[in-house]
Amino acid sequence: MNAEILAVGTELLMGQIANTNAQYISGRLNDIGVNVYYHTVVGDNADRLKECLDTALKRSDIVIMTGGLGPTMDDMTKETVSEIFGLKLVLHKESLDKIEGFYKKLGRPMAENNKKQAYLPEGCIIVENNNGTAPGCIIEKGRKIVTMLPGPPREMKPKLEETVIPFLESKSDSRIASRYLRLFGIGESSMEEKIIDLVEKQINPTVAPYAKEGEVTLRITAKCGRSEDADRLIDPLVKEIQNRLGDFIYSYTGSSMEETVGKLLIEKNITIACAESCTGGMISERLTSVPGISAVFNRAIVSYSNESKMENLGVRRKTIENYGAVSKETAVEMAEGVKRMTGTGLGLSVTGIAGPGGGTAEKPVGLVYVALSSDKGTEYKELRLWGDRERIRNVTVLHALDMVRRHLLGATA
Amino acid sequence: MNAEILAVGTELLMGQIANTNAQYISGRLNDIGVNVYYHTVVGDNADRLKECLDTALKRSDIVIMTGGLGPTMDDMTKETVSEIFGLKLVLHKESLDKIEGFYKKLGRPMAENNKKQAYLPEGCIIVENNNGTAPGCIIEKGRKIVTMLPGPPREMKPKLEETVIPFLESKSDSRIASRYLRLFGIGESSMEEKIIDLVEKQINPTVAPYAKEGEVTLRITAKCGRSEDADRLIDPLVKEIQNRLGDFIYSYTGSSMEETVGKLLIEKNITIACAESCTGGMISERLTSVPGISAVFNRAIVSYSNESKMENLGVRRKTIENYGAVSKETAVEMAEGVKRMTGTGLGLSVTGIAGPGGGTAEKPVGLVYVALSSDKGTEYKELRLWGDRERIRNVTVLHALDMVRRHLLGATA
Repeated sequence: MNAEILAVGTELLMGQIANTNAQYISGRLNDIGVNVYYHTVVGDNADRLKECLDTALKRSDIVIMTGGLGPTMDDMTKETVSEIFGLKLVLHKESLDKIEGFYKKLGRPMAENNKKQAYLPEGCIIVENNNGTAPGCIIEKGRKIVTMLPGPPREMKPKLEETVIPFLESKSDSRIASRYLRLFGIGESSMEEKIIDLVEKQINPTVAPYAKEGEVTLRITAKCGRSEDADRLIDPLVKEIQNRLGDFIYSYTGSSMEETVGKLLIEKNITIACAESCTGGMISERLTSVPGISAVFNRAIVSYSNESKMENLGVRRKTIENYGAVSKETAVEMAEGVKRMTGTGLGLSVTGIAGPGGGTAEKPVGLVYVALSSDKGTEYKELRLWGDRERIRNVTVLHALDMVRRHLLGATA
Repeated sequence: MNAEILAVGTELLMGQIANTNAQYISGRLNDIGVNVYYHTVVGDNADRLKECLDTALKRSDIVIMTGGLGPTMDDMTKETVSEIFGLKLVLHKESLDKIEGFYKKLGRPMAENNKKQAYLPEGCIIVENNNGTAPGCIIEKGRKIVTMLPGPPREMKPKLEETVIPFLESKSDSRIASRYLRLFGIGESSMEEKIIDLVEKQINPTVAPYAKEGEVTLRITAKCGRSEDADRLIDPLVKEIQNRLGDFIYSYTGSSMEETVGKLLIEKNITIACAESCTGGMISERLTSVPGISAVFNRAIVSYSNESKMENLGVRRKTIENYGAVSKETAVEMAEGVKRMTGTGLGLSVTGIAGPGGGTAEKPVGLVYVALSSDKGTEYKELRLWGDRERIRNVTVLHALDMVRRHLLGATA
C-alpha cells in the first residue's frame, strides 16, 4: 500500500509554519510498512483542494489529510471529500455533545459555527479528539482510504496513534517494526565503512543510516507476520552492529543524548553539577528537560566572566592569567571546582570559543575544552569544531554529555 | 505570478527531515509578492518526479525545485527538467574547476561521479554555490520559470537570496516590502480587537497577525513601484499600530526577544546575572546565543537544589522553609542575591514548577515566579502557565526577558 499526505492550510503556503505533520506521519507510516510517495500542501481554496484530492486518489491507495476541520468557512476538508465520494454530511450527536461540553467547561457560550465541526460524512469511522473540538474521521470506499485529521500537531498525533495507525495495520497481513540506534563520536562515512555489507546485503531486516548535526542514526526495519515476533529478526542484527560499532552507540531505543545520560544518572543515582562557559547553559537546559532529573542534577554555574570562574568554581587567577580562560588547565579546574564546591559525584565543565568573534590564530573559533571530574580523577578533551556559533555550541553539548555517558558505563564494567 | 515549491528527496518521504526549505522559500516569495499555491514533495524516482514536474508546470508560473542536484545516480533533478524542456546537459567548465578546487583544498581525490554536478541544462542561468559543490540554475522558457536549488538549507538559502529572489523581483514592475513587529504580553484576540479596523480595511500596506507559542507577530506588507520608497507607505501604519499597542511591541525589525534584550543590554552597557531554577539554564542559553553578549552577561546560576540557592545566591534557609523554593519570597531573594554576589546592574531570577511532576493543589504545575533586582529595587511577577514542560519553560523565558526589556526601556523614559 502506498500513501500520500495532503495538508490543507494557507498558513503553510505563507511560510508561517513548517509541515512537521507530514514528517511525523511519514515516519510512522514507514514504521508500519506503508510507503509514502508524495506530500502535497494546498491552501484553503475549494477548487485547488478538490484538484489535489482528485490527483491523490488517482495515484495513492491511502490519503492522509491534515487541517481544514475547524469551525470557520475557510475549513472545507470534510465538505470536499464528501463531495468527491458522493456522501452526505450528517450530524454526529456525540461529537456535538462533546463540543458543547467543552465550551460549558470553559464557561463561554459556544459560537453557532462550532456546530459545523460535528457534521461528518455518512458511514465514516469517527476519530475522537480529546485535545480539541474538531473530531477527525476515516472513509474507506472501494480500495481507497482517506483519513482526515486536525492540523495542530498536539491534536493530530494522538489521533494518528490511537486510531489511524491501528486501522492501517489491521488492513495488512504483515507488519513492520523499526528500531533506532543512535551513535556519537563516529562520522557517517566511517560508520558506513564498518557496516556497508549489512546496509547493502540485508533484505529483512534492512539497515538505513542517516546523519544529523554531529551524530548518526541507524534505522533497522523488519517485516514480519502479524503475530510474529519482530524482535527475533531484529535482535541478531543489532548484536552484530553492536559488535562492530560498540560504544559509539549511545541509544538502542532512539532516545536523545540528554535523555540517555539523564536516565543513566537517575538510575545510578549519581549526582552532577555543571560549569559552562561557551555553551552558556545549554548543557544544563538539555539535562533539565528530562523529567525527574532534579533528583541528581544539583546545579550549573554559567561562568561567562573570569570572576565567576574564580568565585563560583575556585579557578585560580594564576591559571587564567597563564593559560587563558579557554585552556585545558582552566577546564580542568572548572570541573574539579564545581564538583568540590557542590559535593556531587561528577563535575562537568566546558570552556571554548563559539564565535563569530573572539578567535585568534592560536585559539581559533571552534576550539573547545570539556572536562569531567569524578572521585577517580579528572579527564579532559580538546575539540576543534567547525560551523557557526549554534553548531559549535550544539556539538559541544553532545561531546560533553557523551563524556559523562562513557564514564558512567565504564564505571559499571 | 504564482509559484509551486517542488522538493525532491526520499529522506523527506521517510520522515527523516521536515521540509523547512518549503517554509523558508514560501515566506520569502510572499515577501516579494509571489503567491505560493502548492508544495509538493516527491522521492528520488524518475517517473514520479516527471509526473510531479508536469503537473507543476501546468498549474504554476514558477516552479522552485530543491534537492536532487548531488553527484549520485539518485540525483536526477537536472536530468528530468532537461528532458521535459528538451534541453541538453552541457559541461560548465567554471563549475567543474570549482568542484575540482574544492577537493584539492580538502586534499582528497575527486570521485569521478562529482563531474556530473558540473553538467547543466544548455542556456540556463547558473546559480553559483559557495557553500557546497552542486551549482543550481534557473531556466526560463516561454512564460514558465523553473529554478533548481540544492537541498541542504545552508546551501539553498544563500542561493535563493543572492540569485533567485532578485531574478524574480526583476520580472515584476512592482515590488513588495514587509516589516515584522513582534509582541509579547498581549493575546492574539486582544491584539486583534485593538487593530481589527486596520487588519480588515488596509489594502496597501496590509496587516496580518499570527500567533506563535506565547507571542504574536504582525506582518506589514506594502506593494510599491520598483524605485519607490516602501518605508513611506509602511512608516505611518507602524506609527498608528504603535499608538494603539505601545510597549507590547518588543521588536520593530522581527528580531527575537533574546536578540532585543541582548542588544539593549549591550547598547546601554548594563551588566546582568541570572538565577534560574525551573528554566534550567534556558534564559542564559538564549541570551548567550547573542554574539557580543559577553561584554554584559556576567554569569548564571542554575540553582536546581536548595543548597545552591543558599550557597550561590544567599537565599536564607528560613525563606525556603517558610515559603518553599517556589515562592515570590524565594524568587526575590534569588534575584537580589545574584545581583549582590556578582555586582551586576541587574539580577534576574526564575523559580517554578515546570512539570510533569512536582505539582500540588496549592502550587500546581505552571506556577512560576520571576523577579528582577536593580539599584532601584526588586520587582516580581507571579505566572500561571499552561501546557507541557517545554511550553512552560519557553513562555517563562519570554516573561523573564520581557521584564528586563521593560525595565531597560523605563529607565530611559
